[in-house]
Amino acid sequence: MYDLIIVGAGPAGLTAALYAGRARLKTLVLEKTGIGGRILMSESIENFPGFPEGIATCDLIKRMEEQVRNLDIKIELEEVLELDGRAKSVKTHAKTYAAESIIIATGARPRKLGVPGEDKLVGKGVSYCATCDGPLYKEKNVVVVGGGDAVAEEALYLTRFAKRVNIIHRRNDLRASAILQERLKENKKIYFVLSNVVTEIIGSKKVESIKIKDVNTSGEQIIACDGVFIYIGYEPDTGFVKNKLKLDEKGFIITDQDLATCEEGIFACGDCRKKSLYQVITACGDGAVASDSAYKYISKATT
Amino acid sequence: MYDLIIVGAGPAGLTAALYAGRARLKTLVLEKTGIGGRILMSESIENFPGFPEGIATCDLIKRMEEQVRNLDIKIELEEVLELDGRAKSVKTHAKTYAAESIIIATGARPRKLGVPGEDKLVGKGVSYCATCDGPLYKEKNVVVVGGGDAVAEEALYLTRFAKRVNIIHRRNDLRASAILQERLKENKKIYFVLSNVVTEIIGSKKVESIKIKDVNTSGEQIIACDGVFIYIGYEPDTGFVKNKLKLDEKGFIITDQDLATCEEGIFACGDCRKKSLYQVITACGDGAVASDSAYKYISKATT
Repeated sequence: MYDLIIVGAGPAGLTAALYAGRARLKTLVLEKTGIGGRILMSESIENFPGFPEGIATCDLIKRMEEQVRNLDIKIELEEVLELDGRAKSVKTHAKTYAAESIIIATGARPRKLGVPGEDKLVGKGVSYCATCDGPLYKEKNVVVVGGGDAVAEEALYLTRFAKRVNIIHRRNDLRASAILQERLKENKKIYFVLSNVVTEIIGSKKVESIKIKDVNTSGEQIIACDGVFIYIGYEPDTGFVKNKLKLDEKGFIITDQDLATCEEGIFACGDCRKKSLYQVITACGDGAVASDSAYKYISKATT
Repeated sequence: MYDLIIVGAGPAGLTAALYAGRARLKTLVLEKTGIGGRILMSESIENFPGFPEGIATCDLIKRMEEQVRNLDIKIELEEVLELDGRAKSVKTHAKTYAAESIIIATGARPRKLGVPGEDKLVGKGVSYCATCDGPLYKEKNVVVVGGGDAVAEEALYLTRFAKRVNIIHRRNDLRASAILQERLKENKKIYFVLSNVVTEIIGSKKVESIKIKDVNTSGEQIIACDGVFIYIGYEPDTGFVKNKLKLDEKGFIITDQDLATCEEGIFACGDCRKKSLYQVITACGDGAVASDSAYKYISKATT
């Protein structure tokens, strides 16, 4: 029996673990894929306070992990399949773990375009992670789909390898922050194809081209390319708590200001909860609050 | 005319400035005393994610400041005396600055005991900052008043200099996190005087002793000491927005989840707002959210 189970070991889960460890809660962290979460899909981060030159995301995660391990907290690589809110337990392939309190910090995963060819060509030119796959595209032509910060960062990263990077976005301007838009405009390898949506990814064994459609004229065209990087947002990884916790229409967990969910003793933090800003620093702030709330809940329950 | 004025340059204000700078908002930061705020009253911080060995608070602040200065943001040492919510302007001794949006990040200052002798002996043995004044107490006897994390951290810090450190707390156990309580108990220079309150600080030219009262028996006693370090909490530095923004009974600014105050275009973040957990990492998370909310507000107002 644990005091606290934390599901997910990204920045939110690791910060929750850091605070739980310092409060000497008997804590178990369960992580599905790998410590770090989706932050590792970007190469580096410039807007985490305390690192004026920016820091490689893998270094930042290593540092956070070390900080947690220094407190003797166990992190197990097991996928949580089910949550039992009343019993305060979670089920993995291997077994069932119970605790006084549970924090959900499962984050979010990349959203798919949902167009023909996408699923078939994943890993064969279709990618959701420039940092992982960028180096495979030396002197190649790639397209990047989306309009936010992630698109800008990853497009810039890809220019280190690719010959040409087309940014395809459905609106006529990007949402990316001004500083990143400036850098995009200064970069001669980057081209913009605005007011266009991708309707198909074409290729037999690997990506050969994409079909796009102008949202104003409905005119279609084919763009030859070797890689398609998709950054059109994220969806919360909350399938296992569906029908167990209150979610919004997109699947984000609804919390109050103390990050309590609708189920007593269950808290949520980071990218899996509904909030206004999804950033590494806000995930960390969330993790501290959820951990503190869990601690207060456990203290009250056991006295 | 600025896009954004940020009042306060602690971790919350600096993170807000970092995000504002990256969004290329024309931003002015106004700080009353010194960059860093009350974090500098502690010597080091162990629970800021990303620094597994802990980091000196002055180093962390230097790094955050550098990150903001890299974005060419002006930080002026001027005290804001008045806020005009409608006009979105602030008045300092020198002049009046106006902006599209304002973020209040003024933090909090140490709460006083409010006992006879306290005001008279500030700087003559009465201190609210062990980091600042600790080295003056080599081989001396000091008392530390309070029961939270700050008391524990500062008592431990003081054992580097002092001969003996008495922790005086009104309850019969401390609120400090378990990891800190363990360290206190292991330290042979530290003694506990629990269930007692300080009723007077005694001394003509400098602190000579304190009078304490047992909360159960009402019995009084005098403890001889050379220094009194007071850590009984903080009060928000929000006097200048009283009657301008909605505050709670203790003076903390009331915000919604996006950190908007009751006045359109005015946001609050960090220790000056009402919330459940006051930590450096939550202040930084707040700063990012407030900056993003201000950015969205300005974008909407100007289109």
